[in-house]
Amino acid sequence: MTSPSVTQDSNPYQNEPIWSRSEKTVARIAFDAALGRELHEVIQQAKKMASKIQQSSDLWDLEHYLTQRRKEIDRKYEYKYSQLTHVFGRLLHEQRLCEEELRGLREDKLKSIRSFAKFLSEDAAA
Amino acid sequence: MTSPSVTQDSNPYQNEPIWSRSEKTVARIAFDAALGRELHEVIQQAKKMASKIQQSSDLWDLEHYLTQRRKEIDRKYEYKYSQLTHVFGRLLHEQRLCEEELRGLREDKLKSIRSFAKFLSEDAAA
Repeated sequence: MTSPSVTQDSNPYQNEPIWSRSEKTVARIAFDAALGRELHEVIQQAKKMASKIQQSSDLWDLEHYLTQRRKEIDRKYEYKYSQLTHVFGRLLHEQRLCEEELRGLREDKLKSIRSFAKFLSEDAAA
Repeated sequence: MTSPSVTQDSNPYQNEPIWSRSEKTVARIAFDAALGRELHEVIQQAKKMASKIQQSSDLWDLEHYLTQRRKEIDRKYEYKYSQLTHVFGRLLHEQRLCEEELRGLREDKLKSIRSFAKFLSEDAAA
């Protein structure tokens, strides 16, 4: 027996928000902008570290820094609609994204994003 | 029953050459010099690569380069007397060391070192 709510809802994951085409555009632009800024930051830091290398330990410090940042960026920037409110919440919390860039998303999504950002901020302060 | 040859030879690994104190000094200096030159080369290359980074792929190319070189150096520079003729043979083959720097080693060791360098050169040419 199929419940009426499932029949009415074309989204197989009932608890996940549906992203409209215009929301997907906003999301993609905001996501790419934040990623671009973070990569730019890593590039600048790598250039700075490289310019100061004097001995082998500095060299391996640079390698370690790059490996850590690559893993962190890979984990953080996951472009899946099921994860996107958490992704944006984290970016908001880290001040890598401003709410202005998310204008065009539906209020329920903005609420989830703000709520996760607030949770992370309170968690960090605890 | 103990064989006379074992009793006469204080080295438990009969096939391994014994390194005299003066040979150990020569070996250490030659080893450190080659390692220092190789690290210097990697440092210069890393600085050059970093200065040219424009996009994220360049950044991860630098990380990959550093990881590969670190692993290669770790493997190559193994300061164990049981491995040292092979280590020096490889460095000679790679022209990271000249025979002059090994002056003071006994002829049997130099012969092993040259022999392994020759083997690697022939192997590379094959």
